[in-house]
Amino acid sequence: MGKGQELYKKAKTLIPGGTSLLSKRPEQLLPENWPAYYSKSKGCHVWDLDGREYIDCGLMGVGTNTLGYAREEVDEAVMKVVRDGNLTTFNCPEEVYLAEKILQNNPWAGGVRYTRGGGEANSMCIRIARAYSGKDKVAICGYHGWHDWYVSVNLGESDALAGHLLPGIPTNGVPRELRGTAIPFHYNDFEEIENIIRNTPDLAAVKMEVCRNFGPAEGYLEHIRNLCNEYGVILIFDECTSGFRETYFGLHKKYGVYPDMTIYSKTMGNGYVIAAVIGKKEIMDAAQGSWISSTFWTDRIGPTAALAALDVMEKTKSWEFITKQGLKNKENWQKLADKYGLKINQWGIPPLAGYTFDSPNALAYKTYVTQEMLKKGYIAGTLMYTCLAHTDEVLEDYYQALDPIFAKIRDFEDGEDVMKALDGPVCQAGFKRLN
Amino acid sequence: MGKGQELYKKAKTLIPGGTSLLSKRPEQLLPENWPAYYSKSKGCHVWDLDGREYIDCGLMGVGTNTLGYAREEVDEAVMKVVRDGNLTTFNCPEEVYLAEKILQNNPWAGGVRYTRGGGEANSMCIRIARAYSGKDKVAICGYHGWHDWYVSVNLGESDALAGHLLPGIPTNGVPRELRGTAIPFHYNDFEEIENIIRNTPDLAAVKMEVCRNFGPAEGYLEHIRNLCNEYGVILIFDECTSGFRETYFGLHKKYGVYPDMTIYSKTMGNGYVIAAVIGKKEIMDAAQGSWISSTFWTDRIGPTAALAALDVMEKTKSWEFITKQGLKNKENWQKLADKYGLKINQWGIPPLAGYTFDSPNALAYKTYVTQEMLKKGYIAGTLMYTCLAHTDEVLEDYYQALDPIFAKIRDFEDGEDVMKALDGPVCQAGFKRLN
Repeated sequence: MGKGQELYKKAKTLIPGGTSLLSKRPEQLLPENWPAYYSKSKGCHVWDLDGREYIDCGLMGVGTNTLGYAREEVDEAVMKVVRDGNLTTFNCPEEVYLAEKILQNNPWAGGVRYTRGGGEANSMCIRIARAYSGKDKVAICGYHGWHDWYVSVNLGESDALAGHLLPGIPTNGVPRELRGTAIPFHYNDFEEIENIIRNTPDLAAVKMEVCRNFGPAEGYLEHIRNLCNEYGVILIFDECTSGFRETYFGLHKKYGVYPDMTIYSKTMGNGYVIAAVIGKKEIMDAAQGSWISSTFWTDRIGPTAALAALDVMEKTKSWEFITKQGLKNKENWQKLADKYGLKINQWGIPPLAGYTFDSPNALAYKTYVTQEMLKKGYIAGTLMYTCLAHTDEVLEDYYQALDPIFAKIRDFEDGEDVMKALDGPVCQAGFKRLN
Repeated sequence: MGKGQELYKKAKTLIPGGTSLLSKRPEQLLPENWPAYYSKSKGCHVWDLDGREYIDCGLMGVGTNTLGYAREEVDEAVMKVVRDGNLTTFNCPEEVYLAEKILQNNPWAGGVRYTRGGGEANSMCIRIARAYSGKDKVAICGYHGWHDWYVSVNLGESDALAGHLLPGIPTNGVPRELRGTAIPFHYNDFEEIENIIRNTPDLAAVKMEVCRNFGPAEGYLEHIRNLCNEYGVILIFDECTSGFRETYFGLHKKYGVYPDMTIYSKTMGNGYVIAAVIGKKEIMDAAQGSWISSTFWTDRIGPTAALAALDVMEKTKSWEFITKQGLKNKENWQKLADKYGLKINQWGIPPLAGYTFDSPNALAYKTYVTQEMLKKGYIAGTLMYTCLAHTDEVLEDYYQALDPIFAKIRDFEDGEDVMKALDGPVCQAGFKRLN
């Protein structure tokens, strides 16, 4: 057993769940055999605790590092902050510079507030929307974090709709009083959201991801935008994950439909901890009439990293590159599948794309891919979040490494026992962004 | 006007409220004349945007830096993390080492989870307590952040009790459905909390600060501990602010009364963004039955900084030093007050202590102290959060600087107009930790 798995065994006795993010639990990836911890990283390279090197053609920090790990320009800026102190009784000027930069690039918005994480940013956004509107209910579509306002959507076992939307998200500890305050709706269902907006007089906001595993049907986003205008409902796009992937800032720019509020996080600081809630000036000003205050939101590393990361993005047009490489992935996954007569279902926007084997053994195959790719020095399952370090050369090697694994899955489909090929248990199904 | 005030004017057009923490708003300190922003810091020294140097004998990052700003051992550890990457698809081993260290020093506890801020840690703590107990209500005493579960205590204008406990905390945007889920109680009132615990069958937890502006009456904490045991209610001490001030880890160790859960934040990483929720093993394990997950909780800087900061604390016994210097402050503030026949009311534990002038002009005097001390190169109002850099020499100079200002306040008390001595408006009253 490697040092990583040894440490993870200990971790599970100290930290319920082993670590703080479901997607980073070894059980979600390669149970009992995942290296689990890193010592250092650079570009798309990561070293585990035994000093073994891997190329990350997988989650790339779960979407936090579109510029690659340890990007020099960002790290230099952060190191200066570390040397000069990352927090004092005075504020850091970078929070103002960042607000200016964000608003310059989101001219529809007029105010910015920060948190140090996407979940809390979602909570703040909902607080402000409720404060502005004086209403409590929120219609939601997509994943918006762990806080009560959102998880309350799953309250009540008889709520089949919620159960369908977010399978497996338990509500233990969410106050039952919140039942009915968050109303789920299905992506691309024109009628459902229309009914909700027309028939919920105390609806504060519609909160949604711009894209789910596939994009908007023609006119869908416009339909919601128009309804929100008609009924005075705040339209919120959650761009925590989708921001900076196909566009500079929001994915909504691609569709030309603009929200009243949005949230940026994940890759905005290229791995450093920062999130921003932005919105129209009159809405954001409602934050002043609510109690929204936290010490660590004044840290200097977050906005400094974001400023530097945004500069690199602008300079490199990173969103164009990672989209191009993502499209290449989609094309080559399909080529490999076709070559071996395997059926796969692809999902996600190109820089956040993946595939699922169309087979009752899909989870076992995913585990097998992860296991075999790891042996070849890759962090790679059945998805790839692309970054600037994913050059053509890296991708070509990755496809070559994947080829014999797809060939073997052909054998499994033809009757060989995949379970015998696995060195450990099948990975857990994990969190799904269902439609 | 200095560069700082100029930037703050711009900030207010971009960021509702100007900055993210109420206590750092210039209006709370020295309206129109506060330097507002820093360029660098070291020990207890801070430089503003015009390059002017100040000695921080005030909020010290609002309690985040008991080791002083830019403490070398902590910063070195953080810089290594910056160079090696602060976040990857793998986890950072430091989160496990830190959990181990925290539990070694809190042997009553058996599990740790992290956030990247005190407010969110409070929310997580309540979620876990509710998940474990299957109950929704929480009795609260003290300040516990900005989230819905807590601010709901102020819902309803007729709630005089809540209004008394937390004056001026508005509830706009907090769902009305939560009304009644958080029940406030007054510190050191034996009977009130007893009635609440005995008569609230759906009470999940009692959540409180160990000390408020003064300490516990004899037997008070024991009284609550016993009642919680009797009724199976989870006792939570919020040690976000009080931790590491008079003891290594919780202030509760001083009183020998142990909670079922507690929260550490603020100075645990000496200014770097980190917070921990800890609790008895069976309670913390309830986190597994709830949806509590966030990407940035897996960042490596937070736990790395905390590990290094805890080492420095252990080595220097920082809590002893900052308590000693805090006691010195209390003694000398009183001496100065006596010297000029001024009445002051002191409050707070020694390392987080302050005083209020017993005068209808108290706020104007506070503003005057801030203004005059700033002219002498001090960040200093009517409180001091002590740190390792507050040596005897620094404190002696500080008392000397304060002396003529107290003399002048004598003149104001004798009829001179304090308002004429102020270069700008009186500061806002701000957030009070009332009893």
